[in-house]
Amino acid sequence: MQGATQFIGGDAGHLRIVGMKAIKGQPLAQATHIDKVATGRSAGSSRPAWLLRGIASNVRYATRGELDDLRRRQEPLGRASATMAALIPIKKSSAWWDLAQDERRAIFEEQSRHTAIGLRYLPAIARQLYHSRDLGEPFDFLTWFEFAPADAVAFDDLLAALRATQEWHYVEREIDIRLQRD
Amino acid sequence: MQGATQFIGGDAGHLRIVGMKAIKGQPLAQATHIDKVATGRSAGSSRPAWLLRGIASNVRYATRGELDDLRRRQEPLGRASATMAALIPIKKSSAWWDLAQDERRAIFEEQSRHTAIGLRYLPAIARQLYHSRDLGEPFDFLTWFEFAPADAVAFDDLLAALRATQEWHYVEREIDIRLQRD
Repeated sequence: MQGATQFIGGDAGHLRIVGMKAIKGQPLAQATHIDKVATGRSAGSSRPAWLLRGIASNVRYATRGELDDLRRRQEPLGRASATMAALIPIKKSSAWWDLAQDERRAIFEEQSRHTAIGLRYLPAIARQLYHSRDLGEPFDFLTWFEFAPADAVAFDDLLAALRATQEWHYVEREIDIRLQRD
Repeated sequence: MQGATQFIGGDAGHLRIVGMKAIKGQPLAQATHIDKVATGRSAGSSRPAWLLRGIASNVRYATRGELDDLRRRQEPLGRASATMAALIPIKKSSAWWDLAQDERRAIFEEQSRHTAIGLRYLPAIARQLYHSRDLGEPFDFLTWFEFAPADAVAFDDLLAALRATQEWHYVEREIDIRLQRD
């Protein structure tokens, strides 16, 4: 898969797993480390427990105003201070995917304030969304976050706010994996 | 790629190519036949000239009202009377993909009337859109049409109407492949 990013869980890697919890649905197999690598690159783990793939793609819901707000306030991945990370793979129900575009947008933003909530945690929490659904993967999205240890509590607040939304009623599988750079 | 549909051009296959023209950008290699098969299935052609993959995915622009109109009027693929087909792979520019969702929607429907134009040709022209962009493919979409010989002129009208829209300014590669069932 050209251009895809791979998240490989196993017994070695650049990121150490400090917590892994199935929030909803089936858990992932146990692993102690993760590598986040471009397709074609090899991983540190000799026996991967799992491999998830996603692609950074075009935005699906954000308006021009929301995109401008996000880009004005967000910081890039890879900041030296951001030694904590989180990988949260998510799968939504077929009821979600069967909705029309305007119905999904209304739930995502007008009802759930997904972008508005995320904006409150910028620039502390750096984010990247990887799309997996069209790749035939077990999850629809791989959501990725990087932050400094001092912002770990804010990150928990962000997740709690998102998980309390109408949009999250459509989430049928979610794994919360917390990581630390080695 | 689980769930993907493959279009394989070569020297054998279920569909005979009766015309192939690069409307914009680089042409595809010459072929006499196409097979349209699910991933994992083998093709009739012993030496494929090209292989394009796409996935039937969720709608990206249509509102609930538009979806209901489409579903009320469209007919399924595979009708016995529909002995003509067309495969039209399309790639849009990065200028298109960099737009926000509301900007792409406004060009797609409010300015270009993409769905409204398509509705005028239902149920004569049966359609299916396969998404390719997130699969790292050379095209963003593989558009697929099936119709009876008596509706071939209507099909040309449909294409002319779409190609005259604002949306088509963002198309940077388009191949028009006409087919007949053998």
